[in-house]
Amino acid sequence: MRTVLVIGIGTGNPEHMTVQAINALNRADLVLLPKKGEAKEDLAQLRREICRLYLRREATRIVEFDLPSRDEAEPAYGKRVADWHGEIARLYEGLIAAYTGEEGTVALLVWGDPSLYDSTLRILDRLEAAAGWPLRREVVPGIASIQALCASHGVALNTVGGAVHVTTGRRLRAGETGQADTIVVLLDGETSFLSLPPGVFDIHWGAYLGTPDEILLAGPLEEVAPAILAARREAQVRKGWIMDTYILRRRAA
Amino acid sequence: MRTVLVIGIGTGNPEHMTVQAINALNRADLVLLPKKGEAKEDLAQLRREICRLYLRREATRIVEFDLPSRDEAEPAYGKRVADWHGEIARLYEGLIAAYTGEEGTVALLVWGDPSLYDSTLRILDRLEAAAGWPLRREVVPGIASIQALCASHGVALNTVGGAVHVTTGRRLRAGETGQADTIVVLLDGETSFLSLPPGVFDIHWGAYLGTPDEILLAGPLEEVAPAILAARREAQVRKGWIMDTYILRRRAA
Ligand SMILES: C[S@@+](CC[C@H](N)C(=O)[O-])C[C@H]1O[C@@H](n2cnc3c(N)ncnc32)[C@H](O)[C@@H]1O
Ligand SMILES: C[S@@+](CC[C@H](N)C(=O)[O-])C[C@H]1O[C@@H](n2cnc3c(N)ncnc32)[C@H](O)[C@@H]1O
Repeated sequence: MRTVLVIGIGTGNPEHMTVQAINALNRADLVLLPKKGEAKEDLAQLRREICRLYLRREATRIVEFDLPSRDEAEPAYGKRVADWHGEIARLYEGLIAAYTGEEGTVALLVWGDPSLYDSTLRILDRLEAAAGWPLRREVVPGIASIQALCASHGVALNTVGGAVHVTTGRRLRAGETGQADTIVVLLDGETSFLSLPPGVFDIHWGAYLGTPDEILLAGPLEEVAPAILAARREAQVRKGWIMDTYILRRRAA
Repeated sequence: MRTVLVIGIGTGNPEHMTVQAINALNRADLVLLPKKGEAKEDLAQLRREICRLYLRREATRIVEFDLPSRDEAEPAYGKRVADWHGEIARLYEGLIAAYTGEEGTVALLVWGDPSLYDSTLRILDRLEAAAGWPLRREVVPGIASIQALCASHGVALNTVGGAVHVTTGRRLRAGETGQADTIVVLLDGETSFLSLPPGVFDIHWGAYLGTPDEILLAGPLEEVAPAILAARREAQVRKGWIMDTYILRRRAA
């Protein structure tokens, strides 16, 4: 049976790699590295760097491939995502069949932690259902952006005994702030914190966490928001892309 | 200035250690290891094992100490926790002053990720405010139990674009299920999932995650609950303690 290793690689710092992830990488006959699409060139570069630093097995083959992009012409969000996952699953199936034997092991290097806002496991569900051969998966957890954010700010995620609402920019904009005193926002390309009322939240914000470009800002939301907007704009222009995440905490009344 | 390294060590598997955590450990002049209290003997053992496996610096001193326990006679929860944190802060202050010089570096090994339901950072806030000498902190993220749970089950935490409510057993029992279709429950010594209505949730449950004793159970909550109760009871008797966590997912209507 073939094995797919889904390896969390952390969020930009090669030292986020765990010993378990390094050992898993060294069990792979094939490492599949996405070149384009979702992965910007810098992200592809980190994956190459991780292989260079930690892969000690001569026999392991590294194959780079172009990740297809979503069909933005498809109006229905659910179908757009499902079609895209299906396409990637077929691509994986072809690559794995071409480059590994029936007992082969393939590694997929997933940004951050594979459980958090990542589609790899869902794509594998499809692949397992559709492939003409049996497949087992093994998942190796990785440092997620939320954890890198808290570590860099030196703060705890939750209040004592408190709950945490983890959500997306889209949901925050829709007014879903949850019932917890802490909110974590990922996947927010549109500074959705601007939709929140003033005087309620403190923010801990971070971009390019774990990388040499890391930016951190924190304070009362209404006071720090302009600095975050300016930093985002400047970085976006300088680097051509941005990845940011933040924690909002309701101020004690 | 003295430096405190707050190092996330993962949740039971020594291979959860990141390269960053290993490098940080090797910068410490002093490693403080709690022996009792919150840390059961098995957890103390893992911390010793991590030092044995990864600490290469001869000069590093390892000092074990008894962690005080909370004063259960204090009726107010907030004051009970605050008093306890204050006591640990004073203990740390004494140990650090006794065993490190003014430019010394001390490492604290935190279970899982330091940002998630852990009091170390809050204790350091107190220590920094009270100590007679300046102190800087550096936090190294670690694999959290939630991530180990998802990895072992091979599942994603969130649904596509969905939110996640992270909470405690106490809050779940109080009826706070949040607004997300996924709920993560930690700190639940009382099988609080039994307070939920049948027919609504699927559960992914795990105990002793990352250790050789790991137990995993999953399925519709009302069907799997008896097996979880039995497994918890059996393990509790066999090992004398249990640490478990779970994800609840609202079933699609
Ligand atoms: C598709 S999700 C993947 C999350 C990833 N699996 C994780 O564990 O962090 C991408 C989102 O994660 C956040 N993110 C990932 N890496 C980041 C980084 N290095 N700095 C800031 N935010 C990051 C951003 O909110 C981004 O929109
Ligand atoms: C005080 S909190 C610390 C959490 C830790 N900082 C983390 O990142 O997972 C302890 C709770 O975490 C969960 N937990 C920690 N380690 C675990 C493990 N190995 N297996 C199952 N649950 C665990 C349990 O819910 C436990 O009650």
